[in-house]
Amino acid sequence: MQDGSIQVIVVLRIGHRINRDKRITTHVALVARAFGVDKILISTKDVKIEESIRSICNRFGGDFQIETGVKPKKIIQGWKGVIVHLSMYGDKLEKSIKKIDTNDDILIIVGAEKVPFYFYEAADFNVSVGNQPHSEVAALALFLDRYTKGMWSRKKFDGKIEIIPSNKGKKVISK
Amino acid sequence: MQDGSIQVIVVLRIGHRINRDKRITTHVALVARAFGVDKILISTKDVKIEESIRSICNRFGGDFQIETGVKPKKIIQGWKGVIVHLSMYGDKLEKSIKKIDTNDDILIIVGAEKVPFYFYEAADFNVSVGNQPHSEVAALALFLDRYTKGMWSRKKFDGKIEIIPSNKGKKVISK
Repeated sequence: MQDGSIQVIVVLRIGHRINRDKRITTHVALVARAFGVDKILISTKDVKIEESIRSICNRFGGDFQIETGVKPKKIIQGWKGVIVHLSMYGDKLEKSIKKIDTNDDILIIVGAEKVPFYFYEAADFNVSVGNQPHSEVAALALFLDRYTKGMWSRKKFDGKIEIIPSNKGKKVISK
Repeated sequence: MQDGSIQVIVVLRIGHRINRDKRITTHVALVARAFGVDKILISTKDVKIEESIRSICNRFGGDFQIETGVKPKKIIQGWKGVIVHLSMYGDKLEKSIKKIDTNDDILIIVGAEKVPFYFYEAADFNVSVGNQPHSEVAALALFLDRYTKGMWSRKKFDGKIEIIPSNKGKKVISK
């Protein structure tokens, strides 16, 4: 809570390569939005990904923000809350989550491929969602699920398009 | 339990396009492996993805299997257990999970892009992990987390490479 208002959750995506990581980074951003993150910062400038995420927000609602072309070290140096780095080398999720103050603002660093050692050092918590190679998309979703105590399942987006849960077929309301 | 032995979890990835979905499908396969699935079946033949997943299994352990170039309808028609299809249009995860018999074998269908209506009909359960657009990688991870009651955090892989959880740096044992 940098200004006494409600707590802020920000994802910092580093090492994004426009062509190679296009779809994975899009999934990272959409997971961030769906699981209650306020804003994603992406180190590489990428206008296309900004447009695609804003288009989703415009149709499906919520206040999610995206900014690309940020300087990761500057963001980290200016951050007043807790910093978490998701990594398969990190400490166990269940153990780490107990130590993280959920009243504080949180910056969650999500790397693509090899992450420079600087980020391991800069993080207050290096957190693993299992110590097997899998996916930063899944790791972010699981971390946010535990950190927000499953808030994604109750979050309201109030978008122009709303999907009604259904066991068969597609029920969509367009406002 | 098709043969009286222990329960089997299989993921069926449909609609995989070799170039476009290469990395997302790799993440789906790695999440399947890390979160306790026994085997992934991929509709499109893709030797490269087979090699890359087998290389991970060889180094990091476990009995995970991959087969590509399968016929989805044939798999579904021959399946004796429960069939789940993950979709943003599906019924709520928490509600669905209570209805699924966890002693039965389970086939989990994970689509890429638009899924033909056949699969919605063929599934016993269409399940959503939130009704917002996000990622089949995240949806699979969350589904498996709930379905296996967090088994991923206790699963042993006994691989040549083992990562020791750590809050700073990288602790790796190579056997």
